Amino acid sequence: MKLAELTWQDVAELSRDIVVLIPTGAVEQHGPHLPLATDTLLATAAAEDIEAQLPDLTLLTPTLWLGASLHHMPFSGTLSHSFTGYDEALKRVILSLAEHRFIKFMTINGHGGNCDLNRVAMRDLKSQNPNLQLAAANYFDFPEASTWKDTLKGPTKNIRHACEAEASLMLHKFPHLVRKDRIRDDGLEPTPAIPGLITQFDEITEQGSLGHATYASAETGAALWQAIVAGGVQAVQGFADGYHFLGAQQ
Amino acid sequence: MKLAELTWQDVAELSRDIVVLIPTGAVEQHGPHLPLATDTLLATAAAEDIEAQLPDLTLLTPTLWLGASLHHMPFSGTLSHSFTGYDEALKRVILSLAEHRFIKFMTINGHGGNCDLNRVAMRDLKSQNPNLQLAAANYFDFPEASTWKDTLKGPTKNIRHACEAEASLMLHKFPHLVRKDRIRDDGLEPTPAIPGLITQFDEITEQGSLGHATYASAETGAALWQAIVAGGVQAVQGFADGYHFLGAQQ
Amino acid sequence: MKLAELTWQDVAELSRDIVVLIPTGAVEQHGPHLPLATDTLLATAAAEDIEAQLPDLTLLTPTLWLGASLHHMPFSGTLSHSFTGYDEALKRVILSLAEHRFIKFMTINGHGGNCDLNRVAMRDLKSQNPNLQLAAANYFDFPEASTWKDTLKGPTKNIRHACEAEASLMLHKFPHLVRKDRIRDDGLEPTPAIPGLITQFDEITEQGSLGHATYASAETGAALWQAIVAGGVQAVQGFADGYHFLGAQQ
Amino acid sequence: MKLAELTWQDVAELSRDIVVLIPTGAVEQHGPHLPLATDTLLATAAAEDIEAQLPDLTLLTPTLWLGASLHHMPFSGTLSHSFTGYDEALKRVILSLAEHRFIKFMTINGHGGNCDLNRVAMRDLKSQNPNLQLAAANYFDFPEASTWKDTLKGPTKNIRHACEAEASLMLHKFPHLVRKDRIRDDGLEPTPAIPGLITQFDEITEQGSLGHATYASAETGAALWQAIVAGGVQAVQGFADGYHFLGAQQ
Amino acid sequence: MKLAELTWQDVAELSRDIVVLIPTGAVEQHGPHLPLATDTLLATAAAEDIEAQLPDLTLLTPTLWLGASLHHMPFSGTLSHSFTGYDEALKRVILSLAEHRFIKFMTINGHGGNCDLNRVAMRDLKSQNPNLQLAAANYFDFPEASTWKDTLKGPTKNIRHACEAEASLMLHKFPHLVRKDRIRDDGLEPTPAIPGLITQFDEITEQGSLGHATYASAETGAALWQAIVAGGVQAVQGFADGYHFLGAQQ
Amino acid sequence: MKLAELTWQDVAELSRDIVVLIPTGAVEQHGPHLPLATDTLLATAAAEDIEAQLPDLTLLTPTLWLGASLHHMPFSGTLSHSFTGYDEALKRVILSLAEHRFIKFMTINGHGGNCDLNRVAMRDLKSQNPNLQLAAANYFDFPEASTWKDTLKGPTKNIRHACEAEASLMLHKFPHLVRKDRIRDDGLEPTPAIPGLITQFDEITEQGSLGHATYASAETGAALWQAIVAGGVQAVQGFADGYHFLGAQQ
Repeated sequence: MKLAELTWQDVAELSRDIVVLIPTGAVEQHGPHLPLATDTLLATAAAEDIEAQLPDLTLLTPTLWLGASLHHMPFSGTLSHSFTGYDEALKRVILSLAEHRFIKFMTINGHGGNCDLNRVAMRDLKSQNPNLQLAAANYFDFPEASTWKDTLKGPTKNIRHACEAEASLMLHKFPHLVRKDRIRDDGLEPTPAIPGLITQFDEITEQGSLGHATYASAETGAALWQAIVAGGVQAVQGFADGYHFLGAQQ
Repeated sequence: MKLAELTWQDVAELSRDIVVLIPTGAVEQHGPHLPLATDTLLATAAAEDIEAQLPDLTLLTPTLWLGASLHHMPFSGTLSHSFTGYDEALKRVILSLAEHRFIKFMTINGHGGNCDLNRVAMRDLKSQNPNLQLAAANYFDFPEASTWKDTLKGPTKNIRHACEAEASLMLHKFPHLVRKDRIRDDGLEPTPAIPGLITQFDEITEQGSLGHATYASAETGAALWQAIVAGGVQAVQGFADGYHFLGAQQ
Repeated sequence: MKLAELTWQDVAELSRDIVVLIPTGAVEQHGPHLPLATDTLLATAAAEDIEAQLPDLTLLTPTLWLGASLHHMPFSGTLSHSFTGYDEALKRVILSLAEHRFIKFMTINGHGGNCDLNRVAMRDLKSQNPNLQLAAANYFDFPEASTWKDTLKGPTKNIRHACEAEASLMLHKFPHLVRKDRIRDDGLEPTPAIPGLITQFDEITEQGSLGHATYASAETGAALWQAIVAGGVQAVQGFADGYHFLGAQQ
Repeated sequence: MKLAELTWQDVAELSRDIVVLIPTGAVEQHGPHLPLATDTLLATAAAEDIEAQLPDLTLLTPTLWLGASLHHMPFSGTLSHSFTGYDEALKRVILSLAEHRFIKFMTINGHGGNCDLNRVAMRDLKSQNPNLQLAAANYFDFPEASTWKDTLKGPTKNIRHACEAEASLMLHKFPHLVRKDRIRDDGLEPTPAIPGLITQFDEITEQGSLGHATYASAETGAALWQAIVAGGVQAVQGFADGYHFLGAQQ
Repeated sequence: MKLAELTWQDVAELSRDIVVLIPTGAVEQHGPHLPLATDTLLATAAAEDIEAQLPDLTLLTPTLWLGASLHHMPFSGTLSHSFTGYDEALKRVILSLAEHRFIKFMTINGHGGNCDLNRVAMRDLKSQNPNLQLAAANYFDFPEASTWKDTLKGPTKNIRHACEAEASLMLHKFPHLVRKDRIRDDGLEPTPAIPGLITQFDEITEQGSLGHATYASAETGAALWQAIVAGGVQAVQGFADGYHFLGAQQ
Repeated sequence: MKLAELTWQDVAELSRDIVVLIPTGAVEQHGPHLPLATDTLLATAAAEDIEAQLPDLTLLTPTLWLGASLHHMPFSGTLSHSFTGYDEALKRVILSLAEHRFIKFMTINGHGGNCDLNRVAMRDLKSQNPNLQLAAANYFDFPEASTWKDTLKGPTKNIRHACEAEASLMLHKFPHLVRKDRIRDDGLEPTPAIPGLITQFDEITEQGSLGHATYASAETGAALWQAIVAGGVQAVQGFADGYHFLGAQQ
């Protein structure tokens, strides 16, 4: 179900075993070839495709598109929430629906810079509301690790930023928004490798993308998308059905 | 221009005389007949129609849909930001683009509960950044006062909540989302009238709407919409061209 | 009753049906002819005159004089609270007395810049404490609309800032604080009119006042004052007696 | 000079060597015999009497009467700011005037519960604005230590709460507000003495006062008042003239 | 008991009549002769020596070493928490253990700049949690006043900063960390004396210390230390046994 | 160099190319067999051993021991900072030293619950202070991935909580604090696996530990420790020498 289209009476009648899906994205630079809303578009599309397969098990909220993008601010057009503001926004969506007695919430995040913050916000909520069931999922968690390796053609075998994977997904889902003539490889690695190094994107890229976008294709995008949606459906279904904890030590 | 669809290089090249349009809405109960996203849908549509007529003069951001709706929380499905969180979100959109040297910002607000807060946020920003040009506009400010009076059929001659005006606009723009069979009049007035009385919506309505929605029609909606868009285009054009202050006292 | 003059035992014995009156003002520039405390003086005097007529129905607190005046800061001597600080101050007065089981609270505001913020603070309180009865009233809400029109001599038929109305009220109540030799018209209007335009006072005035103060007289002030106090007494009485909600739609 | 009565043009012309005096008080229970505003009344009166003797050297602001009184909240009628709200209010008064280029600020505090907080707020301001000259003075700092000892008749030789000293000062300055028939001794000491013990006033008093108020007289009050004002004038004069630091170690 | 060394099962079994000791210090300049951690070292050592004598009556937490030291920031190496951050840290230690049902908490503070803030934090906690028993003690509160006077050799008869007292205590407890060749007198007094004057340490010292450190000796340190520990043991024992309030007025 | 032991003059003379090492830990339950301070002890020891090998290249601060441990609060004795408080503490350590012109900062974190928050805090700092060089490292990042796999004997081949790895490290470094008789396996896995599932530790463990601690030995601990310190020295050295960014797209 799409929350936005329901009336309050519709929501009042929904089962509280339903999983609330909260897409989280960003409006931030994605190199010369992808639009600013890339993360928002992909997170929203993934959540919508999952909801379309599980309409009775899911309640889809609008997308939190003002993400944690301070590291992209040197590039024009990037919007960023403050980190505390982002944290508050996600919490308020969940707490509003918890006030209406929903208990199962999963983010469908599409922006790397939100990963830490979604977890932090949900950990904080969970400690105060232990009855809530919370999952800080990213759409790029849904495929098997092997899918990335088997599907991507270029040397980088996971998702970075405006890279082969993101460009392929955009070519599959939103081809009219891709500037195909500007696709380029970009991105710099620190040497020596420093554990936990924190960088701004103007330090580590020339034009904002990180990865080998020149390998991108709509076909690769289609294959990844199929894995994302299938994995997402499975994850949500498991979450909706209820999970159990099994002892690890036997 | 739609910010979401541009690349950072596109934004870097835009004129800084452009007016940034920021739609602000809500996801909150709108009685038994209108969907939760009503304010978001109308604010977004108004902003898009204005942008469509002035593509080179405007830069349209995504819609801030998590509004200040605490007074609607007793009705299921309503989401509300905290007031400080809402304030921060609007400020961060403006400050992000101000960091990219844009200077003219106008909200296209569609939710009554955001009016105070949009003004407060912009007053605070303006005092710290006097060079910014800021307007806390609502889409329902754009028609002439006489338009409401001349167009609305029922006894209430302005916009309230899920009322004749909002229901008509929805019937015009998003008829598939209106539950026509559930349209009803609702809403209570305090007696005696108390200046500045603050209420929750479960005190003053039975099912969430305030006004005479039974008078609504798509025709009324079309007439209002035409006035909203025409007035909005004029307001944005004036703002973009630059306003001047004239002495009032001669 | 004046809270400041009571002992705690006196307060413990008061009826909880009493209306707490909270005057809110400012210390901010009022042009070359009126003192910085104008809004504080008038709000306090209005509240005191109302309390004097309804001593058993009202509990008058001291005046919150540190107002939301960031838009006047360019003029020397202006004090301004931060907006969050102002919000907190008003809430704390109400919450302190709510902790002592009072439930009816009305601001008697005298400063235009506080209007939004009083409403926002009270909306936030109301949503957390729905049992409280709250009214964000301004002293200039108390007269009938026609009073302003019929009484004011100059071209502006409502209250602005250090204008005919405020200067007249000061000439009536605090004539020794008016610099009669410096009274002047001032203030600028934007053209074209921009809905919701946000301005600093050094943009729209030359010496800080907005309106046609040269039309001011003590006689006009006396007439307005009579309407303010009479209207205020009626409003408070209605609030104290208890209001009821009547259906609007039949 | 009294800030409240000046126009912005008056303030613009003042010398910036002037000392800004900021009275800080409270509205809190003062036992069965003194009014809630006791601390506010005495701090304001002390500051006004000092200003009256040094009109050209001082700029007196209105009194911050919403004090840090959480420890008195169990007694009806007490108002308390949050501690962060109180801190912000004092800072905003100072920062507003610092924006108008004043540099010398002294509190004239009358409430024990504000002492820590005034120091904390001013330490924080000083570290960010080392050019400001700040003094967190209390009116009861102004007499010599021996004055208290020589003047007070009862066994407690300093100022406590609604005690001999405060009751005497009120009998001298505001006799009509003292409930003479209800004056009583009250207050409890912990045994054993615990360094730094933190208490609420309902733990350590029966009816809210702490000390031997039955020894109070208007004569004692007059003697103390004379010492307060004389000491205050001297302190302000020294502060206005400028202080110098002398080496302590030779 | 040392909290750090216990398991959660050990803590679960402890008596809730135990006193939680929370040392609070600083990492801030202490003149040319004492290390930055002086306050942390002394507060920790005092708390450890008290705990060693009362292992079953006390639960010792690690030391809050990030103190309120903004007034020392002009000297290199000084760390300072924000005042709100310091407040939060102390509160969170107490609230964490209060969640585990401990009720008696005493700071053993070693830094003058924390005194105000420890009291403010504990007053705030106490007002919200009146069942907690809280003491904002400093290690330098534990000796009798006469001890300082009788033991110190130099002209200053109390503890200041990197002074005779602190240098002596360090020479007694941590002699290897004292730069004996750099010990010097330093520090400036304002003239005239201004009540409540707020200063930064680069205004009132040449090299950071305040007092007559050249009089310091390990012997003086040993005598002071004995009084600190003995006084601390007595204070904690009294606090653990429970205090009673006795009427002061008979 | 150990910051705590230096004087301010020592710090003033240090090279600003030095790497500031900030250990971050926790005081939280570590099952029935490990002490509450486990993470603090190991992070501190790792940082000290690295500093001992690189004394001229490093400046070691005291350990932030009040960690982000809300998920362990159901177990007695656990302390937790609020997440905003933890964020502020880490930022203030860095900003204090940045004010003294240090530019290179690396956390040596020992607590899983701090990982997200260290990154978030440093990302926020970096965006405001792009000249700072920041690394949010954990001591368990320093060994090669293969080290964990080759050294651990039990089925879990990485570090969890009070597990084989942590118990082994404690047996190697702090054997007197390990309750060897209480070592047990514990911990539960959700089925089905939910991406990003957020849990409290009382949901997923019986007695607080997560992993196969019964496989722990001092020998394993010694081997891991050697890898931690060697890897840490290499990481710090690289960071101190300066890193360069190399293009990835060749």
